[in-house]
Amino acid sequence: MEIKLIGIQGMPLVERGDDIPELIVRALDFSGQELMDGDIIVIAETIVSKAEGNTIDLNKISPSEKALEMAEKTGKDPHLVEAILSESADVIRVGHNFIVSETRHGFVCANAGIDESNVSEGLATPLPADPDLSAERILRGLTERSGREIAVIISDTQGRPFRVGAVGVAVGVAGMAPLWDRKGERDLYGRRLQTTEIAVADEMAAAASMVMGQADEGVPAVIIRGYRWDHLKADGGIRDLLRPREMDVFR
Amino acid sequence: MEIKLIGIQGMPLVERGDDIPELIVRALDFSGQELMDGDIIVIAETIVSKAEGNTIDLNKISPSEKALEMAEKTGKDPHLVEAILSESADVIRVGHNFIVSETRHGFVCANAGIDESNVSEGLATPLPADPDLSAERILRGLTERSGREIAVIISDTQGRPFRVGAVGVAVGVAGMAPLWDRKGERDLYGRRLQTTEIAVADEMAAAASMVMGQADEGVPAVIIRGYRWDHLKADGGIRDLLRPREMDVFR
Repeated sequence: MEIKLIGIQGMPLVERGDDIPELIVRALDFSGQELMDGDIIVIAETIVSKAEGNTIDLNKISPSEKALEMAEKTGKDPHLVEAILSESADVIRVGHNFIVSETRHGFVCANAGIDESNVSEGLATPLPADPDLSAERILRGLTERSGREIAVIISDTQGRPFRVGAVGVAVGVAGMAPLWDRKGERDLYGRRLQTTEIAVADEMAAAASMVMGQADEGVPAVIIRGYRWDHLKADGGIRDLLRPREMDVFR
Repeated sequence: MEIKLIGIQGMPLVERGDDIPELIVRALDFSGQELMDGDIIVIAETIVSKAEGNTIDLNKISPSEKALEMAEKTGKDPHLVEAILSESADVIRVGHNFIVSETRHGFVCANAGIDESNVSEGLATPLPADPDLSAERILRGLTERSGREIAVIISDTQGRPFRVGAVGVAVGVAGMAPLWDRKGERDLYGRRLQTTEIAVADEMAAAASMVMGQADEGVPAVIIRGYRWDHLKADGGIRDLLRPREMDVFR
């Protein structure tokens, strides 16, 4: 049993207005590869936001009173803090050099998911406004060009409580359910499974992040090939991975 | 650029006293495969604990007063609660049907990592007493048998705050550092990287978990092949992935 993680190399730096499916298919074509039925394409959120023109010019932001206060408290740039606040539905924890908030989408993460890496100086990329919709559009573009039955995950690299270091997580998904519900299944000894929900899309984003980290030049997209996902073909979106506020004891 | 995730099939149900390196090499041999230099072997903690005879007979446990109270509050079996308490250094959150604690090793997780799946009825498996040492022993056994330069990760499947669903995480490591420190590196635009610490061992455990979940019969070990880990060859242990208590704002 073998699953392949294939880094898509040779993609150019993405600019506003770029057609990501086109860039992916062209890069694959250039290296003599193509998409296959069952492929899952994991794409770094940064290039999605950049292609959508969804970047923030930090110098053009006027920090509010609240942003100035929080900048003082955290030691962060007031313009960035204002951007974080405007992306946030709820601020969860604030301290020296960190702001953890709930984004408008419902993600709980540092800096509201705003990224200052792999974008020109002075700019920052927030998460896509509707990551499932972005994934859906890319899925459609890739399907039209390849004729293959595939799925798309948009990934980010995020820290988490209790553990040091960031890992790849899914922030958008199209073509498959992100969560695998194994309720009712039994283990090797016939006992009911204890852990019944597996966040497969997050595991895929983590696996892809491993490959993205291997490149000297950028590898913003990774193909997961050989994973059978018949069990994930239900409808669903990234919300399936977000724990409802009232069910989370760590707020 | 390609990384392969190879599920090791055909391993028998593991019993107390079994030699895991021997079982792995035999299963690979049976399917005409072998270990290669640079392979990272991810092994499910359940079989490690079982091989080490590290199982708990829940029926033989007498719940303390505190365990009885917590069982009442959570709706969990008092014997299991007693086992959880004895594995825990600190209880973090308790509620209906859940206990999140810090284990003696320093992991913050549900049920102190005690697993009731894939073990005979009435038994449960805690995490290995010293998972890095377990990984080290398996690494030594595999190296002796194969002559290859490899690394070993012991993995578990755990839930996390804010997100629904469990994912594979590393609980023990040998032969490589689990954390990749990218401090000082620059991005595609020459800017300093924002996210400088990547929990690569957790990403590998997540990738392996994806493969383990694909098998009808058990696949308790997965080879990660093709990942260059020169940058991870520093000393280090699983502690590198545990956020010090005083640095964690979600306690």
